[in-house]
Amino acid sequence: MKIVVVGSVAYDTVETPAGKRESQLGGSACFFSISASYFTEVGIIGVVGNDFAPSDRSMLNNHGIDTTGLVEVSGKTFRWTGEYMEDINTAVTLDTQLNVFGDFKPALTEAHANAPYLFLANIDPNIQMQVLNSMTSRPKWVASDTMNLWINVARPALIDIIGKVDMLIINEDEVRQLTEQNHLPSAAKAVMNLGPNSTVVKRGEYGASLFGETFCFAAPAYPLKRVIDPTGAGDCFAGGFMGHIASVENIDEETLRTATIVGSTMASFAVEDFGLERIKNLTKSDISERFRAFTELTRFKSPRFIQ
Amino acid sequence: MKIVVVGSVAYDTVETPAGKRESQLGGSACFFSISASYFTEVGIIGVVGNDFAPSDRSMLNNHGIDTTGLVEVSGKTFRWTGEYMEDINTAVTLDTQLNVFGDFKPALTEAHANAPYLFLANIDPNIQMQVLNSMTSRPKWVASDTMNLWINVARPALIDIIGKVDMLIINEDEVRQLTEQNHLPSAAKAVMNLGPNSTVVKRGEYGASLFGETFCFAAPAYPLKRVIDPTGAGDCFAGGFMGHIASVENIDEETLRTATIVGSTMASFAVEDFGLERIKNLTKSDISERFRAFTELTRFKSPRFIQ
Repeated sequence: MKIVVVGSVAYDTVETPAGKRESQLGGSACFFSISASYFTEVGIIGVVGNDFAPSDRSMLNNHGIDTTGLVEVSGKTFRWTGEYMEDINTAVTLDTQLNVFGDFKPALTEAHANAPYLFLANIDPNIQMQVLNSMTSRPKWVASDTMNLWINVARPALIDIIGKVDMLIINEDEVRQLTEQNHLPSAAKAVMNLGPNSTVVKRGEYGASLFGETFCFAAPAYPLKRVIDPTGAGDCFAGGFMGHIASVENIDEETLRTATIVGSTMASFAVEDFGLERIKNLTKSDISERFRAFTELTRFKSPRFIQ
Repeated sequence: MKIVVVGSVAYDTVETPAGKRESQLGGSACFFSISASYFTEVGIIGVVGNDFAPSDRSMLNNHGIDTTGLVEVSGKTFRWTGEYMEDINTAVTLDTQLNVFGDFKPALTEAHANAPYLFLANIDPNIQMQVLNSMTSRPKWVASDTMNLWINVARPALIDIIGKVDMLIINEDEVRQLTEQNHLPSAAKAVMNLGPNSTVVKRGEYGASLFGETFCFAAPAYPLKRVIDPTGAGDCFAGGFMGHIASVENIDEETLRTATIVGSTMASFAVEDFGLERIKNLTKSDISERFRAFTELTRFKSPRFIQ
């Protein structure tokens, strides 16, 4: 197992201008792991209730995802209901039922604890810390995500865990809220002052910006004909990003730049259909073709006056 | 004269979090022409009052800008007062005094009327049409800009002039308002359905997107350490864009892609100081260096799985 991800496994009810879906499989750990599964072996640490469909576990396993850490307990699986209406980029949460997720105690096997790459998806920062502390040794590369809720209710614990990761992968609004810096390069600098040596700011329809200590890289979003459902796009970004890093093994600036485009590629698929529908049915050639489309989207030549 | 620009020449009073400047030279025609002057010869069509400082005209002339079409009439020069406070990307207009600009009747000499490139900066679309109709023959390439005011009060005239240009260069909010399409690629398609064969959407801190009939190109904004004053950035973008096109003469997809980065380069200088302070004092090597920084900002390698 190359990557361990801890995060939510959920049944989502989502409405967008394109339609509505009830109780479809979602959650940060699912989006992340399916996206990463195209590049490397991933194991999920999470919890579900006894309403969790065996077919959903099979679908994850069929992607080569290790679900031995996805524990089933008595009760109902975490459920989220949301809609994206006027502004397709902003989710409005209508209902959250934590259910079994409210008492989640992550349990790692030896295979999990020895994984070289760890992604702490959006979850209580105290649980992120527990998982990091459960690893046999400090993994080669650890990245984390978070959300406004944890910035509001668990800031000290959040600052602690951010201080221990290599990279924070975070939404634009949230990095501004976390750092109280409106200017993005200043916000990224403030994140790096907390500990990470790099950060990726996810900007939705505007793409993603990667900041390192000595460089910056900007990736656009892919101009899709239609966005059906943005749910999970950020986790699919992180899955592609970490999946690429884990498949390459050599984490330098070039790897991080390419990983940002791989992540953007996977995020662009995520939004093309509801939930996991598109991202779970990709071929290697779909991914190659979309990656090349990013190359085409961003290429330009220097004018004559540039020596 | 390679490019003629018609637009405003103004004295701006601007306050931003970085400070305040009173009655500094500004206006779309000034920002555009100074930016374009680094690449080609430009002539301004505009009007000023008899309060217009001879030193301001000299400054324009010292950049090789032809000001024979910048007519001085009795009265005061157009004045705009605005501020950028909470959100550095959005101007709040505090006061507008049209003054002599209110009765502006553009007058072109033969040199103007024979120019191969024409930029119709943000101004009443009826005046944009008058200038286009005053050209000896249809110029090789015409681009235009506009703003929410004209979309609201002069939509039919605006649609008419857009139908006669090669490219619309427009802000993101305004292209959405103009086309009533929220999804950007759809909005760009709607613009092209009005007549232009390409459009550039200016997205402020998110960069610029170029749409052609068969391609799309995305340019990021340069992640500056600090934004001092965004006034005129869009006009400096257009000046760099048109300046590059006019200097190359061959208007194909490659030229438009490079022009988008040249435009972004010039816009990135514009915001580094108040008004024209930075953009009027550039060297060729400043421009080359910043262009190369855009190359560095956007470059990435393909992963191994891409054949």
